Amino acid sequence: MSEEIGELSPPERLMLTPGPSCVDPRVYRAMAAPIVGHMDPWFTAMMDDVQTLLRRVFQTNNHLTFPISASGSGGIEAAVANVLESGDECIVCVNGAFSERMAVIAERIPAKVIRVEAPYGRTVDPQDVIRAGKGKKIKFVGLTHGETSSGIVQRLEDYRKAADELGALLIVDTVATLAGVPLDVDRQGIDICFSGAQKAISAPPGMAPITVNERVEKLMQARKEPVRSWYFDLAPAMTYWGKDRLYHHTPPITLIYGMREALRLVLEEGLEARWERHSQCQQMLTAGLEAMGLELYVKNAADRLITVTAVNIPAGISDKPVRKQLLDEFNIEIAGGLGPLGGKIWRIGLMGYSAQTWNVMRFLASFEKTLLDQGLSVPAGAGGAAAIRVLREATQPAAAGARK
Amino acid sequence: MSEEIGELSPPERLMLTPGPSCVDPRVYRAMAAPIVGHMDPWFTAMMDDVQTLLRRVFQTNNHLTFPISASGSGGIEAAVANVLESGDECIVCVNGAFSERMAVIAERIPAKVIRVEAPYGRTVDPQDVIRAGKGKKIKFVGLTHGETSSGIVQRLEDYRKAADELGALLIVDTVATLAGVPLDVDRQGIDICFSGAQKAISAPPGMAPITVNERVEKLMQARKEPVRSWYFDLAPAMTYWGKDRLYHHTPPITLIYGMREALRLVLEEGLEARWERHSQCQQMLTAGLEAMGLELYVKNAADRLITVTAVNIPAGISDKPVRKQLLDEFNIEIAGGLGPLGGKIWRIGLMGYSAQTWNVMRFLASFEKTLLDQGLSVPAGAGGAAAIRVLREATQPAAAGARK
Repeated sequence: MSEEIGELSPPERLMLTPGPSCVDPRVYRAMAAPIVGHMDPWFTAMMDDVQTLLRRVFQTNNHLTFPISASGSGGIEAAVANVLESGDECIVCVNGAFSERMAVIAERIPAKVIRVEAPYGRTVDPQDVIRAGKGKKIKFVGLTHGETSSGIVQRLEDYRKAADELGALLIVDTVATLAGVPLDVDRQGIDICFSGAQKAISAPPGMAPITVNERVEKLMQARKEPVRSWYFDLAPAMTYWGKDRLYHHTPPITLIYGMREALRLVLEEGLEARWERHSQCQQMLTAGLEAMGLELYVKNAADRLITVTAVNIPAGISDKPVRKQLLDEFNIEIAGGLGPLGGKIWRIGLMGYSAQTWNVMRFLASFEKTLLDQGLSVPAGAGGAAAIRVLREATQPAAAGARK
Repeated sequence: MSEEIGELSPPERLMLTPGPSCVDPRVYRAMAAPIVGHMDPWFTAMMDDVQTLLRRVFQTNNHLTFPISASGSGGIEAAVANVLESGDECIVCVNGAFSERMAVIAERIPAKVIRVEAPYGRTVDPQDVIRAGKGKKIKFVGLTHGETSSGIVQRLEDYRKAADELGALLIVDTVATLAGVPLDVDRQGIDICFSGAQKAISAPPGMAPITVNERVEKLMQARKEPVRSWYFDLAPAMTYWGKDRLYHHTPPITLIYGMREALRLVLEEGLEARWERHSQCQQMLTAGLEAMGLELYVKNAADRLITVTAVNIPAGISDKPVRKQLLDEFNIEIAGGLGPLGGKIWRIGLMGYSAQTWNVMRFLASFEKTLLDQGLSVPAGAGGAAAIRVLREATQPAAAGARK
């Protein structure tokens, strides 16, 4: 009956997209372990490990810290739905597709959403946030730490101050940053922070780690109406992830195995070493792209997201044939632009297991060949040479300096 | 930093719970394949396979058929949230924890929910459904095909008729039945049918297959207000799973690999052979339990759910020590009762890869030893002998008859 649908045999891609990133073989191995029941004492003890690891990666002591059984967008929904009640007002800083998604999800609760906008490729002005919320009762200020849609990172401290001025909670989407970009939930005063499995953590997609502080826990307890979504209601989910271990829903056991191993890998490497690795790869990539004569989409270097680099598509070159050739000839996937940026930018992710110096060099060489084939004039070898220079400066500063 | 959290090394359990069930090694192998991007043409073509396989297992031609990126309870939420608008009225047939969950989820939309109840262990009277809905505008009649909380199965035809009399949609939760119990979505006229990955399909938990007919698609298109949950909004999710392949959220790629392989296994075996295997295992189990002097919780044999058998805990015996010994000494997990049935019943699942004759025999022998140790007087070898008798009658009817 299913003869024509044969054995699964996926190609081996180098994923340089804004997620999912490539997965360490140790994570695949962990996921091949036999599943057990979700109420098995062995499993519930293992859940403690995952929570301990997650707290270390988020840098938080928050009790309510666990992976939600959904992809990163489910994290957005859980974050906003658990604090909003109908009629509440909130501010969402919108400067890309994923911050816009947070606004849309909040509107559906339904809540009144004030969008404080910045053009794509720019950060939202925290003063605009204060101005928009002044005199209003704002439940939260929400923002996306790293906007993968445009390759922008925002300084969390500024928005924490703005939220404080408004007496509002701070909700931060760190889907694209956790474990790849410096982040310290407690020190930075983030009230609700969530992320995704498949970016810099480099586990397969399907879970959204979340952490919620006591201030939010108290708000949740004082709710007048139930959270609209049963599935994303954090309180009963936490009776399962908490000490009571009461059944809420069956979690994706295999993905939790994978998450545990991916978090172990993050902490074995060390957060600071991992951030440094991501930063080094991005510097190699951006130096290479600029040496090839390409233009980065985000003008202000300090605003560039380390994990996802947006680059303008040069005049006369089409988006899709380039991506198709990279995929077909070199097994490399990069992404195009979303919504208004479709056809205008490419987005190159360097996250988690994908963020390796050798992958940057493989990409730059493959990209050079592809752009030449597609009719762009590119200086021969310049991209790779620039990346190598960055790498030598980092690894052999004296030698590199002497030959400059 | 994570020294004390060592390598993952789960015990090898025989899961005879109401889910998750054991997973075929072929499924683990499929999930160990390298992940690819969710917009990769290879992946989007593979999604077609999964949808084709799912349509065959659901026995439907419905276009809108795909696995939701959530566990089975997410399937409930998607089913009710996509048809309900605020103020709508619906009927939920409540005879256990999972049908009660459907009612609670619908109330949160918020919608007006009429509960038509039956005591746990009994089926809901379809005439009660008609009486409760008469003269009202009922959006849907919802029910749980197989209630794992009490081991009950309900005849879908009766509720289809009741829903027709009320001009209502029929929503059926087949989490515990799909691929284990006869089900034919199109012939039985189910408007929305959803299931879970980790029961008779025997994939790991984390996905909820759903299928929706054209009547519901039209209703979805005519909605006046947005679906409250962005994550569970089927229309945009289907633009990704449909021919447009527009990005909605990143699906759990590894679990989709696993789902594909599990569905291939279902269809290689054949639906009818698979239903027969489940039925045979249940007959062996119930014969064995009764021969041991135990009492089945569901009195009417025709109402017993093939995939999950509920058995009364005998007087003088405690629930937890029995389950603990089964787990610790024999690596077998069975479940206790939920809510009001806690401490009163055990629930023994025989689903998917767990539903094997040899597993029933292993269980009955381990159970006999455990009950004896826990102080119950059990006739020696009677359980196993009864199961063997059932099996011989099925495989060698002539020989078994001659020696009776």
